Amino acid sequence: MAAINDRNEHFTLDCLLHPKSIVIIGASPNTGALGFSVLENLKKHHFKGEIYLVNPKYDEINGHHCYRNINDLPEAIDAAVLAIPRQSVLSTMEALAARKTKGVVIFSAGFAEDGEEGLAQQRQIAQIARENGMVVNGPNCLGIINFDHHSPLTFIKAPLMKEKFGRKVAIVSQSGAMSAVLSVSLTARDIPLSYAISSGNEAVNTVEDFLHSLMNEDDVGIVAMIVEQFRKPELFLSIARQMQASGKTIVLLHPGKSAEARQSAATHTGAMAGDYDLMKVMVKRAGVLQVDDLEELIDVCDLLSRYGTFKQGGAVIVTESGAYKALALDLCKEVGLRLLKLDEKQHAELRSVLPSFVALSNPVDLTAQGLVEPAIYGRVINALNKDDHINAIFLPLIQTDHETCEIKYPEIISALENIKPHCPIVFAGLDDGAPVPQHFIHALRKNGASYFSSPDRAIRALALVTNHADFERSVADETLKPIRFDRAKGSGIIAEYRSKEHLSLVGINFPDGALVSSLEDALVVAEKLGFPVVIKAQSEALPHKSDAGGVVINIHNADDLRQAWQKLHANVARHRPDVNIEGVLIEKMGEKGIELIVGAKRDPQWGSVILVGAGGVTAELYHDSCLIPVDVGRKEIIEALNSLKCIQLLNGFRGSPEKDKDSVINLILQLAGIMRATPEITEIDLNPVVVYDKGQGAIALDALIEIREGM
Amino acid sequence: MAAINDRNEHFTLDCLLHPKSIVIIGASPNTGALGFSVLENLKKHHFKGEIYLVNPKYDEINGHHCYRNINDLPEAIDAAVLAIPRQSVLSTMEALAARKTKGVVIFSAGFAEDGEEGLAQQRQIAQIARENGMVVNGPNCLGIINFDHHSPLTFIKAPLMKEKFGRKVAIVSQSGAMSAVLSVSLTARDIPLSYAISSGNEAVNTVEDFLHSLMNEDDVGIVAMIVEQFRKPELFLSIARQMQASGKTIVLLHPGKSAEARQSAATHTGAMAGDYDLMKVMVKRAGVLQVDDLEELIDVCDLLSRYGTFKQGGAVIVTESGAYKALALDLCKEVGLRLLKLDEKQHAELRSVLPSFVALSNPVDLTAQGLVEPAIYGRVINALNKDDHINAIFLPLIQTDHETCEIKYPEIISALENIKPHCPIVFAGLDDGAPVPQHFIHALRKNGASYFSSPDRAIRALALVTNHADFERSVADETLKPIRFDRAKGSGIIAEYRSKEHLSLVGINFPDGALVSSLEDALVVAEKLGFPVVIKAQSEALPHKSDAGGVVINIHNADDLRQAWQKLHANVARHRPDVNIEGVLIEKMGEKGIELIVGAKRDPQWGSVILVGAGGVTAELYHDSCLIPVDVGRKEIIEALNSLKCIQLLNGFRGSPEKDKDSVINLILQLAGIMRATPEITEIDLNPVVVYDKGQGAIALDALIEIREGM
Repeated sequence: MAAINDRNEHFTLDCLLHPKSIVIIGASPNTGALGFSVLENLKKHHFKGEIYLVNPKYDEINGHHCYRNINDLPEAIDAAVLAIPRQSVLSTMEALAARKTKGVVIFSAGFAEDGEEGLAQQRQIAQIARENGMVVNGPNCLGIINFDHHSPLTFIKAPLMKEKFGRKVAIVSQSGAMSAVLSVSLTARDIPLSYAISSGNEAVNTVEDFLHSLMNEDDVGIVAMIVEQFRKPELFLSIARQMQASGKTIVLLHPGKSAEARQSAATHTGAMAGDYDLMKVMVKRAGVLQVDDLEELIDVCDLLSRYGTFKQGGAVIVTESGAYKALALDLCKEVGLRLLKLDEKQHAELRSVLPSFVALSNPVDLTAQGLVEPAIYGRVINALNKDDHINAIFLPLIQTDHETCEIKYPEIISALENIKPHCPIVFAGLDDGAPVPQHFIHALRKNGASYFSSPDRAIRALALVTNHADFERSVADETLKPIRFDRAKGSGIIAEYRSKEHLSLVGINFPDGALVSSLEDALVVAEKLGFPVVIKAQSEALPHKSDAGGVVINIHNADDLRQAWQKLHANVARHRPDVNIEGVLIEKMGEKGIELIVGAKRDPQWGSVILVGAGGVTAELYHDSCLIPVDVGRKEIIEALNSLKCIQLLNGFRGSPEKDKDSVINLILQLAGIMRATPEITEIDLNPVVVYDKGQGAIALDALIEIREGM
Repeated sequence: MAAINDRNEHFTLDCLLHPKSIVIIGASPNTGALGFSVLENLKKHHFKGEIYLVNPKYDEINGHHCYRNINDLPEAIDAAVLAIPRQSVLSTMEALAARKTKGVVIFSAGFAEDGEEGLAQQRQIAQIARENGMVVNGPNCLGIINFDHHSPLTFIKAPLMKEKFGRKVAIVSQSGAMSAVLSVSLTARDIPLSYAISSGNEAVNTVEDFLHSLMNEDDVGIVAMIVEQFRKPELFLSIARQMQASGKTIVLLHPGKSAEARQSAATHTGAMAGDYDLMKVMVKRAGVLQVDDLEELIDVCDLLSRYGTFKQGGAVIVTESGAYKALALDLCKEVGLRLLKLDEKQHAELRSVLPSFVALSNPVDLTAQGLVEPAIYGRVINALNKDDHINAIFLPLIQTDHETCEIKYPEIISALENIKPHCPIVFAGLDDGAPVPQHFIHALRKNGASYFSSPDRAIRALALVTNHADFERSVADETLKPIRFDRAKGSGIIAEYRSKEHLSLVGINFPDGALVSSLEDALVVAEKLGFPVVIKAQSEALPHKSDAGGVVINIHNADDLRQAWQKLHANVARHRPDVNIEGVLIEKMGEKGIELIVGAKRDPQWGSVILVGAGGVTAELYHDSCLIPVDVGRKEIIEALNSLKCIQLLNGFRGSPEKDKDSVINLILQLAGIMRATPEITEIDLNPVVVYDKGQGAIALDALIEIREGM
């Protein structure tokens, strides 16, 4: 974690996260002024430290002393909140630096997101901060709230944490609006918050820095993040891995699935959009639970706040409608919520508490029995709570009206009080919008259960948290020796024959063949290999040799080879007169098999991945490919391969024989080892890789290595 | 619509939908008894007709006269509500029949859904009803509510329609629970209901019958249906088409996407699961808006209730957060909500009302300007309302708390009152769960706007309704002449060479070739065709000739042909000694092209469709196929083809030349015409169809017709 130790930015964030003294620059007696609202917030939350006010216009504001000049402030105040126009930010920063102020919160917009001039000013903010060892929140942010420390450094309404139940959630978001929105939505669910941090334009300190400061805090069980652009991916991954190891979960919402969103985020944050798919696979690998929309973010935080992490197993759904049972099955299938199979023997107790007309199935359909005999909910929960294979019990209830709620909820709540369930129990209203008395919902949550107003959202969220629990890291157990590239300098491309030489040494299989420089040699080699053969022009300057007619396949005899030799040289001479052919690679044509594309790619920020996809145009046409980080073990590789649709072809499709999947896994492990051991490689392409029947191996027909230029 | 006129079931449903007299069989003075609740409901809703009570135990119930015997009832009561145990249903039916009672509502469960005995009893119910001209709702249902007629024939709480705004929604559901649940959710959204009908086991009258009775009612603008199994698909499609033509929309939720759900629905309803994909394409074609889950059903009804049908165009989103802008773009892309491109010239008025720091983009990001200057919402809505290309304006608002709501909502509501917008305006809380005073939400709805508590749900629902509006029917303009099959009887399979003869007559292209019965003839034909050729064994008994080694391809010369001839006959003799080969089809091998599979299939209930999919294993592996009803025109065929991923190969993938898409469209039109004109055909398979470069046509390599057995 060199990035952290180089610049100790995060160590001093304490001054903003746990300030002992706060100064409001631009304090104001006028309702509506930002500086007014900041002071109101501090008072409402009963901030216990020192508060200073600065405004050149006043000596006193609402009974508090006010400084007319920053120069009059005491030295080394922890946090300065700048509730001032953009134009005054730089001079204020300088004045605060002179007073050795430790941290600054800058609300003002109009910096990097607003064009060249703003960007230049933002860089000046960063320079002042660095020169003076100050930490900076913003600009263009809504500040930082530490709820337990009673320090809302913000002008927006910060909710109070009364009557909340569950593990605390910290919000870390670049967008201030989204941090505020999420605070409202989570507290409306009775979920306690520890922090709400918006980092804005991140002139100095980024979401990663704030996350680093939170990672060891007991009061942070879950971090809800909304990030448009990670500026320190490596740091983020390192923190995420450590947090996962200590049982804390990061839930991430990151726009950018679509090109439109990536462009919008780039405009909004003033930062380039990264590779979304790569980010996605890397954060998952680091233990982050990524969600796709705001609903999922709220819903997943709700479940995690109540239950911490989920265990592996299957869920059980208890419905009151046969039709909803079918709807739930469709939805579970679609979103991947695994249901446990219930059987008479293993679930004898459940069977015994169900009326005889209720079949033992999952979902269990209680019909309207709960209306007649509401104690049945408690008995069912109690019976299910004893099965360790159940990872969640989901009860979508028909609530109808106050009267119906009065029949069902008191029995359910008293059952929860008695049973003290250790298995997550999630309730939902099947009739979204039903007038349910709020005190029942509070009581469910107080007793450790979740409550959703829509059953569909609950199922989606349960799928996300249980699948996250199912994801097990497996680590590669060895590192292959590095490849030594023996060359002075070059374009970065290693020609096919040399790429194959290098990769053969680590055990990757290619067709038998040889590099030749004359037709005579070619004829000799062809006889030795046996026809049919293929010939390919070789040159570092010709990575796309097919496009230049530099490849002839299906050569069946010596005559054909003679013709092919002429044709190949004529083609290349015509298409690429600039290229000097280093030689011609002649290889035996392979048998047909299942084709894959396999590659490796190094990203300077996120790290290296292996790409595996369906062969030919299929990977692109059907988006049938996956990315695999290079440090994974066999188990995760299998899981990644199983996510491909084309895996069915390897498993033996429509009665055709099973293919050699082990060879593919080994190939991936070999490539991953090379990428780990040889940092100068930026890319490897094996396209196609032909996979034969089980036990017959896999052969890469083409190969290309790209290394960092100039190496 | 023969089905309707054969049995006039639907004409008499009026007695249940608009009863003038009602008798409660099993009336009761005891709270909790079903018969008690039915009477309470009728009183609560102020039913204006005659009410009779029957219970052998009482002469009077709560001040109402009670009959001890059905035989004492007056004749020809409209509706009898059977609040009695299952065991008494049949005898009660008979007694009611003797009193010429017109319609019966049966709540009791334990019939077709409960095994053989229950099924037999349900058939007896149907028999009594048919013999006596009675209509039946149920058994195993929750009855029928006509809200405007004040006739709740149900024991569950029926909501009152006070302070509701918008077009009326009729609920028609097999499941009683889901009908009840939906009533609660829709009325919670201030949506007015006209009917809530649950048809249960449908011993006699089905959802289709009830729908038929509602189709011409002015008070039914939208029908929300939850159907596990259509028992009269043809009738349903016919009604749906008529309703669409008169501007009414059916919104359908139908479980069965997954095999699990289909099995559960079959168990629950006692009916076989149909072909879900076929149903889906046919109901869409009939103008039905199908949704995937309960949330979508509620949300779509909300939008349709406020705005009727949507027009074509694009939506505009007005946000208050740059981060949400990116999130919204991701979601719009995912769910297919088309956003209108805004430009400075066409939207000069919008530009003029936006602050200079707000870029003219879609979504428009107002930032926090609405807090400072809440009149901006009205100005923006007013400017957008003038553009006829906008089909919806969506405003996800940051609501925070009461105080913030007091700043924003009054301005918005007064703007709506003044503008009287003609474009659908949808509001949502960006902060789901924020404590918004209910009177603001009411006021939005009263002024014709929708309000959603989650922005994501609003975007999904908007995508559904606007895409439904975009779907335009185009009708095939001619019917091909029928194919005459000249055969006494048979297995139903028409051998390849004869299938090709038939299909050639309507213009479908096949490779040049001929049927031969000797090697000598084969050699002569091959010379004429030119090598390479393919030979295929022909027999009605051998539809899967490849599996028996009955096909040899790639025959390059006469010698090869001689060998192939022997091999083909030996293979078939070994694999299928039972088969007499009628001859051998010899054809010229075609050039390579893009392969598709094309077929036609007749379903006795839903009608005929053409199936088009990617060639080889791809259609199955990637589910890349589509179904096209046989009465569609060119425009819809193009739309269906564009839904295929493999269409990119026809459009010219990665710079390869464009393929002859017109030939594919013509082929589909030809097949569709044949299916319309020749009712005895049950299936046609053309696999593969090879499509060549634009202008070069498409050729079907194989063909198989299946006709109804015995024809």
